[in-house]
Amino acid sequence: MSPFTKQKSAAVSAWGEVRLIQEIRRWLGTATPRSPAGIGDDCATLAGSMRDQLLTVDPVIYGEHFDDNVPAKGVGAKLFNRNISDIAAMGGRPRAAVIALALSDDVKITWLREFYRSLAAIARLHHVPIIGGDIAHQPAGITATMTLIGEATEKRVLTRQGAAAEDWIFTTGKLGGSRLGWHWKFTPRLLEGQWLVARPDVRSMMDVSDGVAKDIWSLTPRGCRPALNAAAIPVSRSARLAATTSQRTPLAHALTDGEDYELLFTVNGSTDPAEFITAWRQRFRSKLSCIGQMRRKRSRRRDDDEIDLDSYHGFEHLR
Amino acid sequence: MSPFTKQKSAAVSAWGEVRLIQEIRRWLGTATPRSPAGIGDDCATLAGSMRDQLLTVDPVIYGEHFDDNVPAKGVGAKLFNRNISDIAAMGGRPRAAVIALALSDDVKITWLREFYRSLAAIARLHHVPIIGGDIAHQPAGITATMTLIGEATEKRVLTRQGAAAEDWIFTTGKLGGSRLGWHWKFTPRLLEGQWLVARPDVRSMMDVSDGVAKDIWSLTPRGCRPALNAAAIPVSRSARLAATTSQRTPLAHALTDGEDYELLFTVNGSTDPAEFITAWRQRFRSKLSCIGQMRRKRSRRRDDDEIDLDSYHGFEHLR
Repeated sequence: MSPFTKQKSAAVSAWGEVRLIQEIRRWLGTATPRSPAGIGDDCATLAGSMRDQLLTVDPVIYGEHFDDNVPAKGVGAKLFNRNISDIAAMGGRPRAAVIALALSDDVKITWLREFYRSLAAIARLHHVPIIGGDIAHQPAGITATMTLIGEATEKRVLTRQGAAAEDWIFTTGKLGGSRLGWHWKFTPRLLEGQWLVARPDVRSMMDVSDGVAKDIWSLTPRGCRPALNAAAIPVSRSARLAATTSQRTPLAHALTDGEDYELLFTVNGSTDPAEFITAWRQRFRSKLSCIGQMRRKRSRRRDDDEIDLDSYHGFEHLR
Repeated sequence: MSPFTKQKSAAVSAWGEVRLIQEIRRWLGTATPRSPAGIGDDCATLAGSMRDQLLTVDPVIYGEHFDDNVPAKGVGAKLFNRNISDIAAMGGRPRAAVIALALSDDVKITWLREFYRSLAAIARLHHVPIIGGDIAHQPAGITATMTLIGEATEKRVLTRQGAAAEDWIFTTGKLGGSRLGWHWKFTPRLLEGQWLVARPDVRSMMDVSDGVAKDIWSLTPRGCRPALNAAAIPVSRSARLAATTSQRTPLAHALTDGEDYELLFTVNGSTDPAEFITAWRQRFRSKLSCIGQMRRKRSRRRDDDEIDLDSYHGFEHLR
């Protein structure tokens, strides 16, 4: 469904800001608390907390992160969940969200309603109120930006720094082919992230947004290279499907498609990966794979099926 | 200066995301702390605080909030200061900012550099680090969205609720004609807001973004009407200048132009407005005006120069 309409009475411009904000508040329902804790004042207020706070901001943009093939509910879900995924990647818990919406005149009111209803559903699911936002006119298209504030669940948060030589490299779920639907249907690995941050042998973490082949370098410590085993990469069905029409291998899709929103993390080399996976399985049904190890650059050890990462390039924005 | 260029080597698309983020970090310099407190991880982290936290989000959009007449530095200043103004309007103190930038391919690198340098200057001025953000491609234009987190400076924050009948209505500064330059040159009333929240007789507050004629209704309690005195409205020189070409009165400009970013607030009716202004003058050089009073709707009292607000409409977005 296209988010736009030529019928003036069905477009947001028919309403103006005051009515629009009124309706948005209605669409959000219990997902937005009363002002000043909710929408309607110069700022939203949030109770203080002595835990480390986490801030992340990510947009969804028409023509970039979604198109007419993604339903409005999927756009809202993607916006919320990709921000939650960033909180998950630090091992945190989301607390509250604000949304800045930039819209052209011809956005359908019904599109906007479904968009906000899906935000409300996710807000209720995770107990993350939408406490404020802004709505503005833009000459063309839709740019919806969410800022999510969260907090640490443990004394530490998991950053991209902290991996060391010999660390095992793990990924949750399956990779690749997200454009066939996963990119707006995924479930952020929130509880998984909180479980991982509580394990002291987990040393660094991020979520996979540009593909493992590119993202893994963000976890790789100085003087090391990531040695990934081709056979261990959890290739998704969508990656295999995408490969049937793309002239590229399913593995290439798994490593470079991006928007997987899985957790990529490293575990102290002294941990037994099989035991780690056993512990995981007692808690989660989702897949966990040990896909390789951080090796010192000077080490000559090369496994037969080690992936030559130089031949894969993950998604780079603005190029 | 237009933010766009047809010369490919001078456009952001020449760089790609990795280089761009690297340069942004350089442009921001000391205005952005090191990761994970600064740019570069899935989330930015911020120390916990037991004070009430404040969240506000506002964009600047090409063609809406700025055009080729506003220099890149002015665009950055406007983005930062309009968010600071929202924190000021609650009597708070800004703590940290995140920025989501959506850009078309043809944005000039030099434009972006000046934009970020002005953000950095304001960040240093107010000791508000830029701790994270996102940069994404969009099909056309520039949409820059800042989320600012702040915190209360007193036990309370000043909201739009809290005014009562007989409350005096005050505004800082002068009003109107902001399009002649004020809208990107203004100084947010941050210290003023903190001084006001510390005075118990100040009962409600907001900043003027759509013009006093529209905004004052947000402070007006049920059963009341705002009685504003025409002679008391602080009409700016820009409003007078705008009126010379607009067929509208300077007063109309002062009441409806919007983007004044002055503080509009109410004070307990038992306070002497002249004494209040005297106290203000001991602390601030900027103008303060008592422009009217909240009257019960049923009161028949009408001053000779009371403004008929129904004949003025403030700026309404998306209309």
